[in-house]
Amino acid sequence: MKVLVTGSAGFIGTHVSRALLGDGFEVTGYDQKESSEPGIESIVGDFLDLEALTGAVEGHDVIVHIGAIGDVYLAATNPELAASVNVTGSTNIALAAEAAGARVVYASTWEVYGEPAYEPVDEKHPCEPDHPYNITKLAGERMLIAADRLRDVPVIALRLGTAYGLGMRPNSVFEIFIEKARKGEPITIQGDGSQGRQFTHARDIARAFVAAARSDVRGIALNVVSPEMISIKQLADIVTERFPTEVTYGQPRPGDVPPSYVSAARIEEKLGWKTEVSFEEGMAELLSADRG
Amino acid sequence: MKVLVTGSAGFIGTHVSRALLGDGFEVTGYDQKESSEPGIESIVGDFLDLEALTGAVEGHDVIVHIGAIGDVYLAATNPELAASVNVTGSTNIALAAEAAGARVVYASTWEVYGEPAYEPVDEKHPCEPDHPYNITKLAGERMLIAADRLRDVPVIALRLGTAYGLGMRPNSVFEIFIEKARKGEPITIQGDGSQGRQFTHARDIARAFVAAARSDVRGIALNVVSPEMISIKQLADIVTERFPTEVTYGQPRPGDVPPSYVSAARIEEKLGWKTEVSFEEGMAELLSADRG
Repeated sequence: MKVLVTGSAGFIGTHVSRALLGDGFEVTGYDQKESSEPGIESIVGDFLDLEALTGAVEGHDVIVHIGAIGDVYLAATNPELAASVNVTGSTNIALAAEAAGARVVYASTWEVYGEPAYEPVDEKHPCEPDHPYNITKLAGERMLIAADRLRDVPVIALRLGTAYGLGMRPNSVFEIFIEKARKGEPITIQGDGSQGRQFTHARDIARAFVAAARSDVRGIALNVVSPEMISIKQLADIVTERFPTEVTYGQPRPGDVPPSYVSAARIEEKLGWKTEVSFEEGMAELLSADRG
Repeated sequence: MKVLVTGSAGFIGTHVSRALLGDGFEVTGYDQKESSEPGIESIVGDFLDLEALTGAVEGHDVIVHIGAIGDVYLAATNPELAASVNVTGSTNIALAAEAAGARVVYASTWEVYGEPAYEPVDEKHPCEPDHPYNITKLAGERMLIAADRLRDVPVIALRLGTAYGLGMRPNSVFEIFIEKARKGEPITIQGDGSQGRQFTHARDIARAFVAAARSDVRGIALNVVSPEMISIKQLADIVTERFPTEVTYGQPRPGDVPPSYVSAARIEEKLGWKTEVSFEEGMAELLSADRG
C-alpha cells in the first residue's frame, strides 16, 4: 500500500510517516520542505497547486492529509492564509483523491466543538468553532466528508487532541516551559493555570492514523484524545520538579479555547484505538531529551 | 453613508443596491462585471485580490458582502472554487473592512442549518451543513463573526431564505417552470413536489440589508425568511394555472436540502424586519413580466 502524507516535514507528519513506514506502507511525503525521516520519498510541493498535487497523488492508495496552518496564532494574524490552506487546500485533496481513487485520512482537531453543551463531548456534539484556526479546520473536514458522499471518495477525519512529543514547535507551551526552566529563567502561566487539555502523545496519534489508513470505515469523524486531563499548572509542576525555577502568572492568550472533556469511546469501538503513552511517560521522555 | 456592495451585478446584489440607493446611501458596486443599476458607481474587481479590494473599500462606511459562488450546482462541480470565493473571499472582506473601519453585512443562507433538530429553526440551532455550497457559506460567516470578536470589525450576518423575484438566475426552478410553461412544454418536478421552501422576495431581502446596514447590531446572525412555506407542487400549480401545460415528475436533484421551517422572529425583534411581499403578489409580478 502506498500512502502520500501532506505536512510530512512537520511535527505530527514526521511521527505519522514513521509509524506508517513501520507498519509496512510505502510513504511519499508531500510538503514545502523535504522530510528528514529516512525511508520516505519526499516531494516538495504545495497542495494549493491542484495540478501538481493531482500528479503527485497518482498511484497512491491513501492520502494522509496533515498539512495545514496548524499554528493558532498564525491563523489569527493571517486568517486569509488559514482559509486558503485549510479549506481550499483540503478541497484540493478531495479532488486529487477522487482522480487517483485514493482514500483520505484527515487531521482535524478537538477544537472544532467550541463551548461544550455537554460532557464528555462525543462526535455528535454540535460544532461551533469561533476562531480562524478551528473554523477553517472544520470547514476542511466538512468539504472532505461531503466529497465522501457526493464524489465517493472514502474519507475518515481524526479530531486530534492537543499533541505533544519530541519535535514539537518551539512556540508550544511544552517547549517554552522546558527551555526556560532548563536555563533557570522564570516560566509564565497564561491565565490561572487551571485550564486543562487532554494532551495526546504524537506516537499515539500516529497509531490512530495507521489504524485509519488500514481501515475501511468512512464518512465519519472520530475523536483521538488521551483520557488524561492535565492542567497547565500540573504541566508547570512536572517541568519545575525536574528543572526548578520560578513560576509567574500572566494574561490568558487570545484564541485559547476553553477546556472541555472529549470522549474517545467511538474510535476505540470503530478502530480499536486507545492511548498507550501516559502523560508521565511522555513528559519523562521530553524532559530527558538531548536539546543540543 | 457610503456602502460598497460585492456581487452588485447579480440578482440579489441588484435588488439590494437599488434599495440602498433608495434609502439614501451612496452605493459603489464591486463585482466582476459592471452593475446595470443607474446611480451606482461600479468598480470591476475580484475580492480574492485583497490589495485591490482594500483600495476599493477605503472611504466606505459599510460593506454589503453578497458576492459568492451562490449556485449550489456550480459549488458541487467546483468545490475548490466555492472554498476560495466563499471562505477566503469573505475573510478578505473582513480584513478590508478592518483597514477601512467599515461595518460588514454578510449574505449567509438558511441552508447552513442542515437537517432540523427542532422546528421552527432559530439562530441557536446547530449548524451541520453537508454540501460545498452551505459548508463554505457558513465558514465565510464564521470567519466574519470571528473578525467581529478578534479584530473589532462590526459584522452582521443575514441567513437568507431562498430568494425569488425579477432578475433571477435562468437555472432557478422559477425561471425554468415559467419559460417552459409559456412555450407549452411540459415542466418536470424533481422529486415528489412535496418539498417546501420559504421563498422570500428579493425586495424583502433588500429591505433587510438596508435595515442591517443602518443598525448597530453586531456579532450575530439573523434569519431572513418569509413565513410562507410553499411546496414545489404549489409553485407548479400557480405557474400552470396561468400557462397551462403538462406536469411530470423526475428524480430529486443531488444537493437539494431537505425542508425545515425557519423562524424570522429574531430579526423582527432586533431590526423590526418582516416580509411585505406575499408569495401570491410576488408570483403575479413574475408571471406578468415582459420576457422579451
